[in-house]
Amino acid sequence: MKPFYVRLHARDNVAIIANPEGALKGTQFACGLTALEAIPQANKVALCDLAAGEPLIRYGEVIGNASRALAQGAWVREDCVTLPAAPPLDQLPMATATPPPLPALDGFNFQGYRNADGSAGTKNILGIMSTVQCAAPTLEFAVRRIKAEILPRYRAVDDVVAITTPYGCGVAINAPGAQVPIRTLRNLALNPNLGGEVMSVSLGCEKLQPSVLAGDAFPIVPNEPWVVRLQDEQYRCFGDMIAAIMRLAELRLERLNRRTRSACPASELSVGLQCGGSDAFSGVTANPAVGFAADLLVRAGATVMFSEVTEVRDAAHLVTRRAASIEVARAFTHEMAWYDEYLRLGEADRSANPTPGNKKGGLANIVEKALGSVAKAGSTALMAVAGPGERVRAKGLVFAATPASDFICGTLQTAAGMNMHVFTTGEGTPYGLAIVPVIKVSSRTALAERWPDLIDVDAGRIATGGMSIEDVGWEIFRLILDVASGRKQTWADRWGLHNAPALFNPGPVT
Amino acid sequence: MKPFYVRLHARDNVAIIANPEGALKGTQFACGLTALEAIPQANKVALCDLAAGEPLIRYGEVIGNASRALAQGAWVREDCVTLPAAPPLDQLPMATATPPPLPALDGFNFQGYRNADGSAGTKNILGIMSTVQCAAPTLEFAVRRIKAEILPRYRAVDDVVAITTPYGCGVAINAPGAQVPIRTLRNLALNPNLGGEVMSVSLGCEKLQPSVLAGDAFPIVPNEPWVVRLQDEQYRCFGDMIAAIMRLAELRLERLNRRTRSACPASELSVGLQCGGSDAFSGVTANPAVGFAADLLVRAGATVMFSEVTEVRDAAHLVTRRAASIEVARAFTHEMAWYDEYLRLGEADRSANPTPGNKKGGLANIVEKALGSVAKAGSTALMAVAGPGERVRAKGLVFAATPASDFICGTLQTAAGMNMHVFTTGEGTPYGLAIVPVIKVSSRTALAERWPDLIDVDAGRIATGGMSIEDVGWEIFRLILDVASGRKQTWADRWGLHNAPALFNPGPVT
Repeated sequence: MKPFYVRLHARDNVAIIANPEGALKGTQFACGLTALEAIPQANKVALCDLAAGEPLIRYGEVIGNASRALAQGAWVREDCVTLPAAPPLDQLPMATATPPPLPALDGFNFQGYRNADGSAGTKNILGIMSTVQCAAPTLEFAVRRIKAEILPRYRAVDDVVAITTPYGCGVAINAPGAQVPIRTLRNLALNPNLGGEVMSVSLGCEKLQPSVLAGDAFPIVPNEPWVVRLQDEQYRCFGDMIAAIMRLAELRLERLNRRTRSACPASELSVGLQCGGSDAFSGVTANPAVGFAADLLVRAGATVMFSEVTEVRDAAHLVTRRAASIEVARAFTHEMAWYDEYLRLGEADRSANPTPGNKKGGLANIVEKALGSVAKAGSTALMAVAGPGERVRAKGLVFAATPASDFICGTLQTAAGMNMHVFTTGEGTPYGLAIVPVIKVSSRTALAERWPDLIDVDAGRIATGGMSIEDVGWEIFRLILDVASGRKQTWADRWGLHNAPALFNPGPVT
Repeated sequence: MKPFYVRLHARDNVAIIANPEGALKGTQFACGLTALEAIPQANKVALCDLAAGEPLIRYGEVIGNASRALAQGAWVREDCVTLPAAPPLDQLPMATATPPPLPALDGFNFQGYRNADGSAGTKNILGIMSTVQCAAPTLEFAVRRIKAEILPRYRAVDDVVAITTPYGCGVAINAPGAQVPIRTLRNLALNPNLGGEVMSVSLGCEKLQPSVLAGDAFPIVPNEPWVVRLQDEQYRCFGDMIAAIMRLAELRLERLNRRTRSACPASELSVGLQCGGSDAFSGVTANPAVGFAADLLVRAGATVMFSEVTEVRDAAHLVTRRAASIEVARAFTHEMAWYDEYLRLGEADRSANPTPGNKKGGLANIVEKALGSVAKAGSTALMAVAGPGERVRAKGLVFAATPASDFICGTLQTAAGMNMHVFTTGEGTPYGLAIVPVIKVSSRTALAERWPDLIDVDAGRIATGGMSIEDVGWEIFRLILDVASGRKQTWADRWGLHNAPALFNPGPVT
């Protein structure tokens, strides 16, 4: 393929090399620009002579300053870019450019499972929680038996999942940070794909007592037993415990088995967006395509969540200005400020974010990563903000605050209520979740070709395959409806690649 | 059974009710003391009239002050006991009462697996790490296939274990706290039960690069491949990745399969001690019996680790005075001070430790819990101190600093190199580990009778069965040798109850 680069904005003075082979030294591009050295794909080239200290501009935004003079055609490596200060949170434009609503998009449905609380599931799963890790291996033993001996009789149920974590005891349960993991676990149990059939295995002496886990959220049917407490006197051996878990599970499997898929409007979708293993293409191909799909979903009345505080922190000014109101903008900056302080206490800062792979993939720093990351959020108004682990009820575009860690973000978005997950990747990851289908979108065609049985959508075609952002955006939107309806299966579900829940616990362990 | 109580020290002015039925109101004990109210088993009775503010003494140590006047025979409930200040770390007796060595105990062996580094394993397991959770489900998929398709050909290998955690990316890898999880993972791979066959599955772009995980510890055979890196260009589909993991695993299984058990002196044992779900009996029966066994192990030249900072913090003065040197005592107070500060930053303190079950079990506060907890450490000199996740090489009694969380402590002790684990419990827990056998000791006979297929040793017989601490201590010591030799199996291993590794990560996630 003939070498070419992608410039995203008229103001940009750097662009990224788009063709898979990269540019050789001396390569002349169509516009006449000559590469002064070999530049790998996804890395940046200087479009003009740049003085030391001059702002480097990509996405029309400053991603840093030149650490030294760079000649036109030079490779703009990571060490050529200084990290600018993060946007000060008290000087952001607050709801100054709220986008007007886009035209409504009617008539799109999926075949989902209706829940009593008005939500809709895209899978029909029995999820069983442990209140504490002490009980986890016993629960897992019971789940192995349930899947082997009982589940085959309940054909309409997709799976039985043990939702276990290291939380529940040996933690400062009254520390200010503890509310986050506790509400996360509570809201995980309420995820639409679990059909309201809450069930938990408790040890008995743990700090996270079932009543604390439940709050006033469950049992959903008043007075219905939902906990097997292993230390209860009635269990006279291990077999008794397993039998009790299996009995309580079977009652729920009977009810779940009576459910059938029915037409639900696309507005019942709650789609969590995430990226992992990003490269410089993520912000050019996969994330903008997902952003277009996000706009389609919002137009259809759905909820779309974006997350990952450290990956939007440096694009905060782009988010606050499109908030639906000053209150929503303030809620957003509140989450940013909380995380700034959290990192400071741990003697870290936002520069801890980009990974070695991100950098190899051409991302100079967290500013450049953030500008590409927010492209997933499309162009609509920010309607609401949720704290980590809070349930999201708003429709439209919502910021669900989470760390950027893929598994923690996925767990928190599951707790927020997502019933579909879209995950973009540049370097590639075989990520998946047990409860929510994960559609993986690659930023480059080479990755989609190398991992044909892991990547669901190739957005690299936007750079090198003649497809438009709109084309791939529509493809993602339609695939979301197909997967949500059970008509298509993601590769992660095909192989059963399911990352374990990972809680965000800002409080100490004891 | 006739009501009776246990007083542990001549100075004590409170004692615990020992018989399972507890004391009824008006019960007269053998000594003439009358219970003024019904007092449940394991709870405390006042042995004399106590004025408000008077020190309450158990184990010969102050566990708090009376929050109000208590009449002789009154139930000393949790709310009758104020929490005293923790022992100030700069005023502790430092190595002032180092116990002289006990007589050596010769001639005790176990049938273990000799390792090239001089250590000995009690199991023969292939452990495969993931450097990052992104790779975990792929590794778990491969391990399922290895166990089904390859392991049956290697009869001398006990198991294949995927050692996966949420660590590796999405974390502040350069924060001061990050050294703890990184060295924990490194040292987990070096546990004697894994036979030096280190192997890891990496994604490729993660922060915890295999070279960072390895440090200068592995590969143990120079230049031998030990990592399957999923993003490597050579893997053209998911099946390629699985095949590569299976190939690398099989090379190791072939070598592990050639190992046989041979006589190893008991000095090659490294026994980690822990308690979980403690009650007031833990410090009377199970922990002192384990303490006696600990002394036997030390006399036989073995390593014995005790841990759980928040559960020894209030007994720090009892530990520092028996340190082998002032340096060892200082290393101990250093770990206490580090944890004090860690909790303070999280706006928690040591009062966060006792659980609802501990309190129901008669433990008023962390002081009482700590005094019972250190009984596990027996009576020998403290020879060394290790930080969280550090490898322990010293012989004799060692303090391996860890949080008290059962799973985190177990993970850190596994990283420290333990090849046998003894776990005491009052309320009961079905705890177990995949890599190291866990012998569970109950503090009460009622628990051992209710859970006959989970509890390995009933130490309750010390209170109610006419057995001495020495009797049960010897029984535990002999069971350790039997299990270490593969002659007996723990209940946790019988059922395959294995708690997942839980890392201690004091640093922030990003």
